[in-house]
Amino acid sequence: MEFATKSAVAFAQENAVRFVEELKELLRIPSISTDPERAGDVRLAAGFVAVELRRIGMDNVRLIETTSATHPDGHPLVYADYLRADGVGGRPAATVLLYGHYDVQPPDPLDEWKSPPFEPTERDGNLYARGAVDDKGQMWMHVKALESLFAANGGKLPVNVRVIVEGEEEVGGEGIAAFVREHPEQLAADVALVSDTEMFAPDLPTLCVGLRGMIYTEIEARGARTDLHSGMYGGAAPNPFVALAQMIAKLKHEDGRILVPGFYDTVAKPSDAELAAWKALPFDEEEYRKTEVGSTALTGEAGYSVLERTWARPTLDVHGMPGGFTGAGAKTVIPARAVAKVSMRLVPEQTPAESFALYKGYVESICPTGITVEVRLIHAGDPIVVSTDNPYVQAATEAMHTVFGKETVYVRGGGSIPIVGDFIRELKIPTLLMGFGLPDDNLHAPNEKFHLANFHRGIESIVRFLASLGS
Amino acid sequence: MEFATKSAVAFAQENAVRFVEELKELLRIPSISTDPERAGDVRLAAGFVAVELRRIGMDNVRLIETTSATHPDGHPLVYADYLRADGVGGRPAATVLLYGHYDVQPPDPLDEWKSPPFEPTERDGNLYARGAVDDKGQMWMHVKALESLFAANGGKLPVNVRVIVEGEEEVGGEGIAAFVREHPEQLAADVALVSDTEMFAPDLPTLCVGLRGMIYTEIEARGARTDLHSGMYGGAAPNPFVALAQMIAKLKHEDGRILVPGFYDTVAKPSDAELAAWKALPFDEEEYRKTEVGSTALTGEAGYSVLERTWARPTLDVHGMPGGFTGAGAKTVIPARAVAKVSMRLVPEQTPAESFALYKGYVESICPTGITVEVRLIHAGDPIVVSTDNPYVQAATEAMHTVFGKETVYVRGGGSIPIVGDFIRELKIPTLLMGFGLPDDNLHAPNEKFHLANFHRGIESIVRFLASLGS
Repeated sequence: MEFATKSAVAFAQENAVRFVEELKELLRIPSISTDPERAGDVRLAAGFVAVELRRIGMDNVRLIETTSATHPDGHPLVYADYLRADGVGGRPAATVLLYGHYDVQPPDPLDEWKSPPFEPTERDGNLYARGAVDDKGQMWMHVKALESLFAANGGKLPVNVRVIVEGEEEVGGEGIAAFVREHPEQLAADVALVSDTEMFAPDLPTLCVGLRGMIYTEIEARGARTDLHSGMYGGAAPNPFVALAQMIAKLKHEDGRILVPGFYDTVAKPSDAELAAWKALPFDEEEYRKTEVGSTALTGEAGYSVLERTWARPTLDVHGMPGGFTGAGAKTVIPARAVAKVSMRLVPEQTPAESFALYKGYVESICPTGITVEVRLIHAGDPIVVSTDNPYVQAATEAMHTVFGKETVYVRGGGSIPIVGDFIRELKIPTLLMGFGLPDDNLHAPNEKFHLANFHRGIESIVRFLASLGS
Repeated sequence: MEFATKSAVAFAQENAVRFVEELKELLRIPSISTDPERAGDVRLAAGFVAVELRRIGMDNVRLIETTSATHPDGHPLVYADYLRADGVGGRPAATVLLYGHYDVQPPDPLDEWKSPPFEPTERDGNLYARGAVDDKGQMWMHVKALESLFAANGGKLPVNVRVIVEGEEEVGGEGIAAFVREHPEQLAADVALVSDTEMFAPDLPTLCVGLRGMIYTEIEARGARTDLHSGMYGGAAPNPFVALAQMIAKLKHEDGRILVPGFYDTVAKPSDAELAAWKALPFDEEEYRKTEVGSTALTGEAGYSVLERTWARPTLDVHGMPGGFTGAGAKTVIPARAVAKVSMRLVPEQTPAESFALYKGYVESICPTGITVEVRLIHAGDPIVVSTDNPYVQAATEAMHTVFGKETVYVRGGGSIPIVGDFIRELKIPTLLMGFGLPDDNLHAPNEKFHLANFHRGIESIVRFLASLGS
């Protein structure tokens, strides 16, 4: 059958306002997966997604409970499928696995939000809310594309579809990783579509073909048995914060190099063609510094462009240093313990296991006198590169080209989407990273937003992509 | 008149249980001066002390409001006096200024307390509570010594006495500093008695003749304009925590030396006699490490004993590093800003002003690329040495000798009591630091305690000291 693409696109356009209002409802649920006190809200968000998948016509909608070592009370997966598609020209229909996540990052610091993080607010064509673009808004594009296709074609889809939506992406995604590992047959597909990345620039359709991996760790330094008064003990008692500072200074040079011995040994250099393509992208480092980062200077390894540094080079960041006295005023305590939350981004061919082993051994070797140190792995994700050598990439490229009227560009992403590695490893399928976020969408920061035009263009792109697979 | 010392000591012994019960009442008031939400409790503690001073017979009891730049809504001073003492042998009576403070440190971390910090609990001859020894318990010794003297002698004291009790000691004491500076005549005295220090060892009567000063600072490092996602920006955006770590590593060498250029230039070496006396004190560094500190090793400058390092050498400590993400789990944020709370202990002849200027200039000079830094002085106190060359020191030495049956030793303290510097500078009087705390009293830490035998011996020592000045 020739699929009614035009009708589906028209349906999406006619229902654009409703789609956004539904998304707002979902965004009002503070499904913060890192916060145990929000477990009920996380579950509510799962239910919200499941109910809608059922309403639009998906089959076998269900919540799948997850557990893992780090999250024994896991947040459920939402599963749905449609496996009744007619084939094309005698061939059986392809199966597309649609992935998204309904959990969000914590909203702190709250006082920097211009409108409350869980009261979605439209301003200047953008929708502001925690999760607007990461990933509730982009996941909702998938749901609404499916609804449009169903509506335009009498309750049928042009391809087979499985939908899997998780609630632990922001806490490491161990639940879905275990499910993929243990039940690969339940997610069997030909290709996965993930919309959790961004476009390189406004109006520039983008497919992301590489992602950094990561290891997120905690270094806990312990000195004295109990907190001590720095007047009485200063000069004799070890200070865990000073020790952590000294260790961090030995982990990362001021020139941006990570100082863990052997850390760079397995780093693969991008191909000359890839580097040349990156140079051709519309990107101005000074403009990026001023408009996106806003610091007095950019930092990082000398001799590499910003795109190389953020896409194809490992990094080390410190996210917080809990412990001691953090209130106003002057408490003169030498804390018994302090923690540094440290992560490293990894690139092909680094592996989380080997990188963590090198890092842990090095940290233990540089621990100052009087301090005992414990290095913990909080979570890990593989770096990946996505093959462009298959018809699905071409179909996605064409779909976005049609919607945006520009050539689709291939980039990499600096963030981690561990599930993409799981799909490659366990399901043996490539993943299309077709994202509609923008560089200034404030992911994981105050005032996260989603450009609403991209929400709608994303829906149309996905409609066209899925429809093209059925024709 | 010959003063009825014996009767006063007997009164104190007979009323020992009541004295402790009264102290417990005071300790139940969470007068945490660093916590704006506790302002009402701080004021309540002031009232509690004032009411008791009035009840026992002191004159002119009043609360004096304070304000300062850093604490515009200051906590009141409690003032009382007794200026009716008969002279001795035709000479006018001496005037003793009794100083203490009724405010306490925050109790965090709460979960490490064996009994709640504001529910005073007796265990093994100790009274456990926040403020038990620092300084409510020791201040209460003064009040109870005065009560005992009044009771034993028909409502009269052997010497003139002024009492000044502050509520901002733990937040820098700027209110009392301003009062001393602006109204020195209202505190005119011949000598000050402060009980806010510790004995060198159990049963060893101790006068403290030197104190370190301090500067307590905050270094605020700012990088990007807003919090950023470390996946997308890691490798290009400056990280304020990494920058703070690099700066702290350049402030303090792993061998314990402070690396601020010129910082040690004005450090005075203790006299050979003083160093020899310290060597004779009953002190075992390994025992101290095991029982008091509990770390795997002690730290600090090579070539100096622990007593030298904690009494006569400057130090640098980091107390906390607020900012970023400090919760459970793995938020991958590059925070826009982070702060390090850093203090330095100072020794004669260093001055807070000069030390801060050197430190601030150095920190600004080592600030990494992409980071802007602000160095703030939170509070400061002069290092001091107390002259032993006057009859009051001898009277105190004798009083303690009588009570404890041992020779009184002279030590220094590593902590700061800024008011002692104010008394020297503004009132031109020496201060006796006659403290009855013990090294394991957990000042500023969980499970703060006061050894109750020392509470009672402290009262008797002060009774005998004040009585001896009137005979």
